[in-house]
Amino acid sequence: MRESGTHPGPVAGAESVSAELDRLLRGRAAQAARYGSEFARLWQHARERAIGGKLLRPRLLLGAYDALIAPGVSVPLTHAAVVRMAAMTEILHYAFLLHDDVIDGDLTRRGRPNLIGAVLRERQDRAGAPGETPADGAHGGREDLDRRWAETSGILMGDLFLSMAHQLVAREALPGPARDRLLDLLDHTIVESVAGEHLDVALSTGAIPVTRDAVLRMSQLKTATYTFELPLRAAAILAGADRAIDHSLARLGQALGLAFQLQDDLLSTFGHPDEHGKDAFSDLRERKETALIAHARDTALWPEIAARWGGGELSDADCRTIREQLRACGAERAVESLVADRVAQCREICSSEEAGLPRPLAAVISALVAELTGRRA
Amino acid sequence: MRESGTHPGPVAGAESVSAELDRLLRGRAAQAARYGSEFARLWQHARERAIGGKLLRPRLLLGAYDALIAPGVSVPLTHAAVVRMAAMTEILHYAFLLHDDVIDGDLTRRGRPNLIGAVLRERQDRAGAPGETPADGAHGGREDLDRRWAETSGILMGDLFLSMAHQLVAREALPGPARDRLLDLLDHTIVESVAGEHLDVALSTGAIPVTRDAVLRMSQLKTATYTFELPLRAAAILAGADRAIDHSLARLGQALGLAFQLQDDLLSTFGHPDEHGKDAFSDLRERKETALIAHARDTALWPEIAARWGGGELSDADCRTIREQLRACGAERAVESLVADRVAQCREICSSEEAGLPRPLAAVISALVAELTGRRA
Repeated sequence: MRESGTHPGPVAGAESVSAELDRLLRGRAAQAARYGSEFARLWQHARERAIGGKLLRPRLLLGAYDALIAPGVSVPLTHAAVVRMAAMTEILHYAFLLHDDVIDGDLTRRGRPNLIGAVLRERQDRAGAPGETPADGAHGGREDLDRRWAETSGILMGDLFLSMAHQLVAREALPGPARDRLLDLLDHTIVESVAGEHLDVALSTGAIPVTRDAVLRMSQLKTATYTFELPLRAAAILAGADRAIDHSLARLGQALGLAFQLQDDLLSTFGHPDEHGKDAFSDLRERKETALIAHARDTALWPEIAARWGGGELSDADCRTIREQLRACGAERAVESLVADRVAQCREICSSEEAGLPRPLAAVISALVAELTGRRA
Repeated sequence: MRESGTHPGPVAGAESVSAELDRLLRGRAAQAARYGSEFARLWQHARERAIGGKLLRPRLLLGAYDALIAPGVSVPLTHAAVVRMAAMTEILHYAFLLHDDVIDGDLTRRGRPNLIGAVLRERQDRAGAPGETPADGAHGGREDLDRRWAETSGILMGDLFLSMAHQLVAREALPGPARDRLLDLLDHTIVESVAGEHLDVALSTGAIPVTRDAVLRMSQLKTATYTFELPLRAAAILAGADRAIDHSLARLGQALGLAFQLQDDLLSTFGHPDEHGKDAFSDLRERKETALIAHARDTALWPEIAARWGGGELSDADCRTIREQLRACGAERAVESLVADRVAQCREICSSEEAGLPRPLAAVISALVAELTGRRA
């Protein structure tokens, strides 16, 4: 899911998360200097990019945690510990982005060079300087070497961020059962996110057939689990909530996550770029296997859509035509109805006695759902 | 460092490590089936490759642990816990191999397809089957898509193995200070290994100049830390040894690791392939920046060596010529003397009062050193 536009979570404590992230990454970057200037420089690029996001996941965690703690009740954890766990979700997020970008061969994110793009540009700038020729015997041309260097940086930095996320959870002085539950949750999150990324690449490289179910499953695994289920359930574990609440939040996170992703797909294709702030038609141009496309594949209009979508570079006029075709074949309406289903499911979980969500938490979730349904960006 | 040839460690408990690895990976592979047959298949490839290594690191850990525990003294840990931590070192090793192979673009390891090679081959075999064409709109040609699919598999499986290593340490029921020390050691190991890999690619892509010091530093960071320092220090922590012993083992691990790597470089170039079992001249053919090459760069013979080494495919005759030139320019002798220095350093640490190594441990290390110096394979 993209991170532009308004955010769904509450804002409590976002500043403390930024400060904690800054502190953590500053420490790591300082330590990196020990391994030479190239490694220090890599850390600098990573730090600049890992900080300054919208902190969607940390804010969701903090908002849910606050809502789960009854006022005046003593809590087993310091505020600092909760903030650290919130920062952990952002670090995990950046680890996934780093490896995603290597896998997709992307050089930009949110309109500016990502880590790979920055390393590549820096290297190309330097290549003009005298004495900077490839080592004797280095394989491949200049361009291949530069690219390999930049992608290596992305893989390795992703490994470090993934390790940091584990270290943060493992070192937190939580009561034994809470630590084990949080470790379980982290493990589950990573396995699902990896399985989702694997499925995404399976779909986009033709390893498995593109069906609507496979695309929805991919979105849930790749995005809903770490963006919604992880922060919500981590909040429950940290607040000492019982397993019934944890279980309800797992279902809720999946439904919310899928609703947000599908809404994102709709906005990116049918929304106004001035409002959502993304490149108009970037999903179409990148030929993303969204739920819209998956639906369209099963309709009579598909051969006509595919003739354009499956071809070369798409002009604005091509994209406008495809957009109208996606509307005409019923894909827009079908995805809107999928969103509505998930929203209804969220509302049901929030209001059901059985799900056992405390009222303040249900209110936080309802606000999120309302924001989602009114979302234009 | 390669893993062929005889091993330096003691054999105690290797079977229990194999059994533990098998149990752990079987559980993970079974869980993977939940995410579809492609993901399950990936796990099968990974499991086949992660098991069946020579268990150099686990055996070193177990050997050192046994030597650190005085007979008859009660120990704080079960044997099963020590075996799990030994298995962890092998899991970390395989995580590094997976990302290494993606970074180097390698498709084989020890003469058989690695994970990437196996996934690629399977996909190519299947591409002959009807209905297996790329999805409409998939980027790039068939070959690019296949390669991207295979490398994605390597990146993602590496992430899972890296996560597993952390989970194993984090979940072990160790006394608090031991767990924190082991987490510190794991963190240190990963940072150094990543910095070493980064330096390796910096050298091989021409990002920094190739010097002997940089090559030695790279070998220590990339290999010595996780192959020798980690198992030795983990043994010390698990056995409850004091910090002085831990510190001595850190120095020892670095010296031993570098000695083994340099000996490996010598054998690979000057040893007999029938004895070391590797492709003759593979280091030369892959244009590895070894200490031999780094030394040769500073000699008058370099222009002549570089004319061959820096050119196209190397024939057997080319390699034999380069080998003679590496001898003639003094590179072989210089590297032998580096090995001798490190061996002397190990012996000094083993015998010094100040280093405080218990006698049985010093004996284990001395046996390793003796094996190293007599090593032909």
